[in-house]
Amino acid sequence: MRSPLAGITVLALEQAISAPLCTRHLADLGARVIKVENPGVGDSARHYDGVVCGMAAHFVWLNHGKESVELSLTDTGDREVFDRLLERADVFVSNLAPGALGRLGLAPSDVAGRNPRLIVVDISGYGVGGPLDHKRAYDLLVQSEGGACAITGTPGHPAKGGVPVADVGTALYAYSAVLAALYDRERTGCGTVIPVAMLDVVAETMGFALNTVVHGGPEPEPVGMGSPMVAPYGAYPTADSQTVVLGTTSDREWQRLAGNLLRDSDLAADPRYSRNADRVAHRAELDEIVGRWCAGRDLAEIQRLADEAGIGNARLNSVTELAGHPQLAQRGRWREVDSPVGKVPALRPPALGRDWTLPDGRVPALGEHTDAIRREVRDQI
Amino acid sequence: MRSPLAGITVLALEQAISAPLCTRHLADLGARVIKVENPGVGDSARHYDGVVCGMAAHFVWLNHGKESVELSLTDTGDREVFDRLLERADVFVSNLAPGALGRLGLAPSDVAGRNPRLIVVDISGYGVGGPLDHKRAYDLLVQSEGGACAITGTPGHPAKGGVPVADVGTALYAYSAVLAALYDRERTGCGTVIPVAMLDVVAETMGFALNTVVHGGPEPEPVGMGSPMVAPYGAYPTADSQTVVLGTTSDREWQRLAGNLLRDSDLAADPRYSRNADRVAHRAELDEIVGRWCAGRDLAEIQRLADEAGIGNARLNSVTELAGHPQLAQRGRWREVDSPVGKVPALRPPALGRDWTLPDGRVPALGEHTDAIRREVRDQI
Repeated sequence: MRSPLAGITVLALEQAISAPLCTRHLADLGARVIKVENPGVGDSARHYDGVVCGMAAHFVWLNHGKESVELSLTDTGDREVFDRLLERADVFVSNLAPGALGRLGLAPSDVAGRNPRLIVVDISGYGVGGPLDHKRAYDLLVQSEGGACAITGTPGHPAKGGVPVADVGTALYAYSAVLAALYDRERTGCGTVIPVAMLDVVAETMGFALNTVVHGGPEPEPVGMGSPMVAPYGAYPTADSQTVVLGTTSDREWQRLAGNLLRDSDLAADPRYSRNADRVAHRAELDEIVGRWCAGRDLAEIQRLADEAGIGNARLNSVTELAGHPQLAQRGRWREVDSPVGKVPALRPPALGRDWTLPDGRVPALGEHTDAIRREVRDQI
Repeated sequence: MRSPLAGITVLALEQAISAPLCTRHLADLGARVIKVENPGVGDSARHYDGVVCGMAAHFVWLNHGKESVELSLTDTGDREVFDRLLERADVFVSNLAPGALGRLGLAPSDVAGRNPRLIVVDISGYGVGGPLDHKRAYDLLVQSEGGACAITGTPGHPAKGGVPVADVGTALYAYSAVLAALYDRERTGCGTVIPVAMLDVVAETMGFALNTVVHGGPEPEPVGMGSPMVAPYGAYPTADSQTVVLGTTSDREWQRLAGNLLRDSDLAADPRYSRNADRVAHRAELDEIVGRWCAGRDLAEIQRLADEAGIGNARLNSVTELAGHPQLAQRGRWREVDSPVGKVPALRPPALGRDWTLPDGRVPALGEHTDAIRREVRDQI
């Protein structure tokens, strides 16, 4: 058993979601992550709410396994501590507001120039150049600018994806780029600078929709719980007041749904519905047929019959139902991490090698490691 | 200039989105990706539509830079070719239906046992064990099961996030885990097995909402284009028939929005709205005030004033508007890749080191590399 990133040090000037999730996953792999926070205030996510016994839900999610050091980068003494940490770091991750790094004398190129082995990750909303590079970039804003909201919700009522895809996607692209750079450095001895713009991340995840319009296809419409590409597909209330999600992804599956699940041979044979394009055109009436069938049965029966017929199906779960989901519990996905308010539950990271050790982690109090890190830096001068 | 994964070979038994996006990004870093496809049929995503001059929008998005080899794994001769490829691969990625790998004698543990340097990525919907491990898992199904739809849309009208977060998130966790494993292998000489379950990925991205309910907070509701945590925040029609997205994320920003942007000193001073929790409770009336102000002005003026007031803002873009977005064009985010139907536009990957070379890429026709790969394997026997 081993931690892949044991011995690697990450210095983070980070706030909110994107950079903190990136560095949390680096900590999950055994890296030492030093989170630099403004004295007395810290990461803004510390103050979003107090739902976890006084700590914020976001902060607890994103920061276990890190060390917190309070440093004012405009104070000469603190800045020297920071510069020493930067000299010895392998990775420097930041997601400050546009221009903030430059004002601190920490522009990515300058920082990289001082230490050719350093891997510098520069997260921004819109990158450098272009009409928007000065703009603030929160998840909802970039989801809107990036077209993601326009394909979510229902026609005329766009919606933000509940999962913060701009932030989470940016975190994961930054995280993977750091790992690629560490691998590259093993072979070349060289670090690099990695710019990651949230808009570019959202655009990448929109690849299907972009290819459609770029090649003259129709502007994709949001279709609620359905699929823009196939029908019938959707969420249907059941007799026991639950909601089942099911449908067909191919003509073959339609035959199984109509013939084997709904047991309606006339429907299965109806030439009006044999091809997916035709079913999409008759989406509403097919939804009604499937909906009527589901409304007469309990969820468990529907799911059993759908499994038997080879039709993909799921339950529309609330967050509370996800929290208690047997598929997470029975597979040991939950663990506990320490925090200033005691042990709190946390999910194991989604992708670990089976012989990698997951560090215990702890959510740090603001400045919890300031004294130790100051001492450490002093001892090394 | 260099490609970090030059010299690395990835063998992929993949379909649809999650594994193909993972391996496309490995190809973006210079790895050789050999995509094994069923003879005459191939990746199901080849047949989703024909919008890209006869090729499918999804397939073109997810598969440039790969080699396609048609092999029937139940045919003895083809299987020998596959086994030779597997012997020499560094990484093996698959996302077949539950049980399919085992039926092919390719269960992850068996494959890893034959080659201790191999990195094996096993993508599934629900992992091994638990009540759901046999179930089909499409993006919409796992978004539903994972609670993501319940926090998207509007109250009483849940919606699927338009971005396929279950698939894309799984791709990125698989991708980053491969990179971590390659780094680890440089130092230990050992590969590993990496299981990645889509449900676990969605659950990780739900961290904020999960922490809220686990600690007794309220079940999060979908709030359309708003935010569950702050108010006012949302999408507002403008005088020139566009939609602006803006709002406040803190009490300080509220003061700027009310005082500097709306120039309403009474509103800024109103004690009913001074704290975020109070503003959330008065969400509807604040939305009306902001909406009325926006309705009287053109988008460009609103955005200029909001920038000056330090209030984050964005345009609600359609997919077509994203495709033509000057922020992508002016920063050189588009390039062309080759394909069987000629050059097609593609976005540069969101996160590359500035001194890494991006390979040209090409979308492979089904079996385009079959002969060359058969020859290559024969020559090495």
